[in-house]
Amino acid sequence: MADRIVDAASLKAQTTRIFERLGLPEADALVVADHLVEADLRGHPSHGVIRVPTYVTACREGRINSRPNIRIVEDHGGQVVMDADNGIGQLAAFRANELAIERGKAHGMAGVALRRSTHCGAMAYYAIRAIPHGLIGWATTNAGINMPPTGGTQKLVGNNPFAMAVPTDRPWPMVLDMATSVVAGGKLQVARAKGQPIPLGWALDRDGNPTTDPHAASDGSLLPVGGPKGYGMALMFDVLAGVLSGGRFGAGLGEQGSGQFFMTIDVGRFMPLDQFKARMDELIDQLHGCPTTAGVEQVFVPGEIEHAIQATRLREGIPIEATVLDALDRLEHELDG
Amino acid sequence: MADRIVDAASLKAQTTRIFERLGLPEADALVVADHLVEADLRGHPSHGVIRVPTYVTACREGRINSRPNIRIVEDHGGQVVMDADNGIGQLAAFRANELAIERGKAHGMAGVALRRSTHCGAMAYYAIRAIPHGLIGWATTNAGINMPPTGGTQKLVGNNPFAMAVPTDRPWPMVLDMATSVVAGGKLQVARAKGQPIPLGWALDRDGNPTTDPHAASDGSLLPVGGPKGYGMALMFDVLAGVLSGGRFGAGLGEQGSGQFFMTIDVGRFMPLDQFKARMDELIDQLHGCPTTAGVEQVFVPGEIEHAIQATRLREGIPIEATVLDALDRLEHELDG
Repeated sequence: MADRIVDAASLKAQTTRIFERLGLPEADALVVADHLVEADLRGHPSHGVIRVPTYVTACREGRINSRPNIRIVEDHGGQVVMDADNGIGQLAAFRANELAIERGKAHGMAGVALRRSTHCGAMAYYAIRAIPHGLIGWATTNAGINMPPTGGTQKLVGNNPFAMAVPTDRPWPMVLDMATSVVAGGKLQVARAKGQPIPLGWALDRDGNPTTDPHAASDGSLLPVGGPKGYGMALMFDVLAGVLSGGRFGAGLGEQGSGQFFMTIDVGRFMPLDQFKARMDELIDQLHGCPTTAGVEQVFVPGEIEHAIQATRLREGIPIEATVLDALDRLEHELDG
Repeated sequence: MADRIVDAASLKAQTTRIFERLGLPEADALVVADHLVEADLRGHPSHGVIRVPTYVTACREGRINSRPNIRIVEDHGGQVVMDADNGIGQLAAFRANELAIERGKAHGMAGVALRRSTHCGAMAYYAIRAIPHGLIGWATTNAGINMPPTGGTQKLVGNNPFAMAVPTDRPWPMVLDMATSVVAGGKLQVARAKGQPIPLGWALDRDGNPTTDPHAASDGSLLPVGGPKGYGMALMFDVLAGVLSGGRFGAGLGEQGSGQFFMTIDVGRFMPLDQFKARMDELIDQLHGCPTTAGVEQVFVPGEIEHAIQATRLREGIPIEATVLDALDRLEHELDG
């Protein structure tokens, strides 16, 4: 579990080379690499380059299409449906999100639903891209089913996450990115790796009993945040990402397949962007000025901590597990052969 | 705490008369009464006619304007800002939501932000109204501040709720309506009335300590659902309802003033409505077929239980606390004088 420090640029270059060697055009490989390295930069390694070996295997086994024909299948200006042709999620979702941004500027609001996509990483990545355009960005995806509905014992909904990003006058946008489970699946992985128990309330074992054993939890199910609230939100996000996109949803979700929904709102259609940002500044100042509980130095707004980590890591490099870096080296060498 | 059974039509007629006598035109009084009685019909008495005396007092004291000039202040077709002129929230929000429905049909998606509004009741009421038009409905409001941000000790965010309603082929839409606190404030009221303790994790006392005393909790603060998740969502909904509307937000929220945001998405721009509903049916069937935990008869989807209660109460009448009905009688008589 030892980390090595790598700089973002060389990590991105290596990741790009790996995806190029899988058959992706350079520009597309760069899109995927940029996403993965940004997740590592922002302190979310579970959505970073640690995923590369899984994606490579899926591409080699044909579960992910490395030369997808990502295309528009329904176009009403501000409402678009796209088909990802089983392409790698980070690429297909990037394209759908870029279209949501373009159409949001043109129409004031836009929604792009993406079907036949695959795991597309951190939802914050997409929402954040709306910010330089003066848009509020919103993104959701359905995930492999890993939670029971409230009152049920069978896994039937994913802990479908969503992200929302809002322009501010600060060097960072306000960004919320959350799964609809009590904790993301990655926290079970961490507990397993460390040999530590998990708190009651995070997960159930395969028989539906509460458990503190992260191994039993991984064989079982996650629990929705706030019970029926998390269940309800997970379901609603599946409605947008799965049902409305024309893709797979609910129990129909396999390991790789998923759908996404990207939405943008043009702030300038409601009030001048500068005025909006000044109001956001006031809101942020209020929160920063909040007295804190014992042991807490400062109250943060969503996305602020991630931005600080990103700034540090851009300067000083990203700590990545040595085993992950070794795997990247091996893959790059293998794919070269 | 004894209930009497009243039929919905006469409760609505009486409530309408009360608001007419406050100076509202009959059509507007009907809108307000319809909202309040629907909340009682759907089993959410905390947003029902129990609120009438508070609204009447606020109207008489001028904190709510009973003859408001509710108007559009910014109009870009699919994006509209309205000013409620401190009118009663149920009326102003109804108008803004009707516009979101009309504009959603015209443009495929629409967002209407409402400023200078007041408490507008159950958000589900608005989202549900989009359903007969083949739209997905979405509504949020900011509320008086009642939660500390994560890591903070001072109340700075409201437990801002949102609702989302989705068309189905069933006699009921799928409707999620949830506050961003662990529990809604009404549950503290119920515990106080019954003299029962509340579970740890619902609320803090005024010194920021966890409490099981519902009285101490009412003097203190609610807790956000899922910690930073609930805090983040509450903040994002304040951004839409408060910051983007040009109304009050954050610490600027007084007891009465609030803002709202209504959004609609036209299903037919993504796929034929019939096809969408058939897909929703499949999703609902999956959930209904889920094996249940001990003591649970059936898994429900959000909004299903409320619809069943509504159907029963339309047939058999609504149980309302006798003290509430007495207060309505008194108010009607007083306002007649």
